[in-house]
Amino acid sequence: MSKLLLQNALIIPLDDDSEDYYRGDILIRGGVIERIIPRPLAGGAEDVKNIIDCTNMAVMPGFVNTHGHASMSLMRGYADDMPLQSWLEDKIWPLEEYLQSDDIYWGAQLSIAEMIKGGTTTFTDMYFEMDRVAEAAAESGIRAVLARGLIGLDSGGEEALKDTARFIDDWHGEAGGRINISLGPHAPYTCPPEFLKKVIALAEKSGRLVQIHLSETAFEVQECLKQYGVRPPQLLNEAGLLELPVIAAHCVHLDPDDISILAEKRVGVAHNPGSNLKLGSGVAPLCSMLEAGIKVGLGTDGPASNNNLDMVEEMRLASLLAKGIAQDPTLVPAKKALQLATRGGAEALGLTGIGQLREGYRADLIGFKLDVPHLIPLHDPLAHLAYAASAADVDLVIVDGAILLEKGKLVRVDEDKIRAEATRCAFTLIERSKK
Amino acid sequence: MSKLLLQNALIIPLDDDSEDYYRGDILIRGGVIERIIPRPLAGGAEDVKNIIDCTNMAVMPGFVNTHGHASMSLMRGYADDMPLQSWLEDKIWPLEEYLQSDDIYWGAQLSIAEMIKGGTTTFTDMYFEMDRVAEAAAESGIRAVLARGLIGLDSGGEEALKDTARFIDDWHGEAGGRINISLGPHAPYTCPPEFLKKVIALAEKSGRLVQIHLSETAFEVQECLKQYGVRPPQLLNEAGLLELPVIAAHCVHLDPDDISILAEKRVGVAHNPGSNLKLGSGVAPLCSMLEAGIKVGLGTDGPASNNNLDMVEEMRLASLLAKGIAQDPTLVPAKKALQLATRGGAEALGLTGIGQLREGYRADLIGFKLDVPHLIPLHDPLAHLAYAASAADVDLVIVDGAILLEKGKLVRVDEDKIRAEATRCAFTLIERSKK
Repeated sequence: MSKLLLQNALIIPLDDDSEDYYRGDILIRGGVIERIIPRPLAGGAEDVKNIIDCTNMAVMPGFVNTHGHASMSLMRGYADDMPLQSWLEDKIWPLEEYLQSDDIYWGAQLSIAEMIKGGTTTFTDMYFEMDRVAEAAAESGIRAVLARGLIGLDSGGEEALKDTARFIDDWHGEAGGRINISLGPHAPYTCPPEFLKKVIALAEKSGRLVQIHLSETAFEVQECLKQYGVRPPQLLNEAGLLELPVIAAHCVHLDPDDISILAEKRVGVAHNPGSNLKLGSGVAPLCSMLEAGIKVGLGTDGPASNNNLDMVEEMRLASLLAKGIAQDPTLVPAKKALQLATRGGAEALGLTGIGQLREGYRADLIGFKLDVPHLIPLHDPLAHLAYAASAADVDLVIVDGAILLEKGKLVRVDEDKIRAEATRCAFTLIERSKK
Repeated sequence: MSKLLLQNALIIPLDDDSEDYYRGDILIRGGVIERIIPRPLAGGAEDVKNIIDCTNMAVMPGFVNTHGHASMSLMRGYADDMPLQSWLEDKIWPLEEYLQSDDIYWGAQLSIAEMIKGGTTTFTDMYFEMDRVAEAAAESGIRAVLARGLIGLDSGGEEALKDTARFIDDWHGEAGGRINISLGPHAPYTCPPEFLKKVIALAEKSGRLVQIHLSETAFEVQECLKQYGVRPPQLLNEAGLLELPVIAAHCVHLDPDDISILAEKRVGVAHNPGSNLKLGSGVAPLCSMLEAGIKVGLGTDGPASNNNLDMVEEMRLASLLAKGIAQDPTLVPAKKALQLATRGGAEALGLTGIGQLREGYRADLIGFKLDVPHLIPLHDPLAHLAYAASAADVDLVIVDGAILLEKGKLVRVDEDKIRAEATRCAFTLIERSKK
């Protein structure tokens, strides 16, 4: 198996045992972190031919993006600053009707290119025509947790469930295990309890994770109370869904009982601070969720609502919002913010073997270049990454031992082509929708 | 006078008369925007020798950073996630005691390098040993509004006021008018009314702007009420300070009466959303200030508390926080966010002839490269800059007609040297403080 040595890196392991940061070498073999050798002990791996000098780099686990809709990059900036319902009904849904298979593919490739460039090594996705997203993920080298979105309001739901079973068979574990398939019931308000029972049956049979939107807006919580007399987490709980591994996206409008349910049922949460602000949904109670022991990861949501896929931004927002809203600067300190963006996401998604730099873990790691004005002087690399760095500082990205970004350039895909094809798809989509 | 042509740019003028964006050429002569020629009319300036192809660039007015302490870059990441008082008393002030003149200079150079790279063409500063900051600003080519910080609690206040008068004489209008000197009474709680009277006298005599911290924390508002029986804006008003041109930084804890006073007295406000969150100060009532007609600009605050000087981040935060806190996605739309970060700041600082792309205005402008994944497809360049772009996308910076950044590289200063000297200063400062 091929070996790769990251030499003299400033290592930020984000594990429980090591120092917060130290100098060392990382030996990667196949897709695995074989050894981490702190300096001055490092040395002895000089026989490795493929060496990357990381002297000016902080190396940490790659970001785990726990929620998104990658192909919606084609609609980035198409409609902004609008109320949620008219944004969806007047702008997004009418365009989505005209999406074709190639649009899904190139939209996903565009988002994956952006995510890799910004240090995301695992992304989560819920959309449709998901085979094309899986194809893009497999080709690009990124790790993915994918779900076909399920709407249970009409007869299409049954068909989509069947297609999900087929999608799992076709794709789960592909690309050397990089492709993970999950189930994607869209939300409590689009998947009534009787439909959720069918989702649960397939989830139990397949053993796969369930991803769902939950309590994103105050409006949907009110509607749920009106229709069912309970709040959305309780509705899901009564339907039996929370007995399964579930990651719930947004969770902005939670009361203390909701939080207790999510904690007790070990539900993972995808916290999307940027999207929640931009769509006017609100600010999720991150600290209350963490205090209750909920497994929280961070997500960007789709690029039509965020409008980028920048996990550094989300990490910073998660920390700054927690501090600012509670008027307590000690909340969500730098290391916690970094953990949320990496291992927190892995744990929320139920993925093992990623999210920390540890021997035996998958080699999903990223390097931030440190020789930029805004990261000088280097008093505390963790504070720098949490509070000062930019996604553009990501210089090196490795997933499953394979280099995807080197010196800031995508080395496995053709970025120029992706930008050109995504642009073409976006504008022909709009033309098509106007006919 | 030398001419420079920006050819085929996607122009975002942020003025009141033009389209939000259009293709065109910008002819710069000396330090001034001489002509803006929309396409397809453009052409006829082919005799200009110095031409920059801006086909893949959005060109807009440079950012105006309305509040900061540039030399504190030496303490970036030195202490984070701490309560404000112990951060100041246990960490920052003890270090500041040991700052030497060269530290001020190299700390300022580091911050200016970062700001220029991120598209800031004017910055505002309040600190001490300000001649060295002025020197750094003059050399680097950036536009600056500088104030020696004034504390009126002891006999040092008088001396500092005298030094301010000398600083104005020495520096105001230097570097072809790029250096503007203002007065810097630190805050109502460090400058009692009797001292403010002396500040007012010098401000009236010199005709210069006054910058001051105002109502940053809930604590200082409570203390002001205890000590004086009025809230800080009223205290300043009763002292007569608000009859002068004033820019007040932070303004987080304002009640409706405070807002009325600031509006009526035409006080400019420097809104620092990132610093206010990170220090746990809170969220300023941006929309209420705007509705009242207050001139609001954006600021980064110092790099020890933010921890970068990224105006793109501040612009995005200003918009997203307004939307998210009020749960209204229509608030502070993209164009408004861009205006706050540019002409809003110029107006809050009382600077004329910058902040918009207009014929006859100073040539302070920046170009964002558009051929990056996160700005594809180009449905709406204003939304892209407000919601998706990164400071790292800034490729071209021109101040007063001079190119300071080209193809993302600083062309007037030696970035490597600045990073090395700032690092050296920061670590010798810490050594010195430990002796």
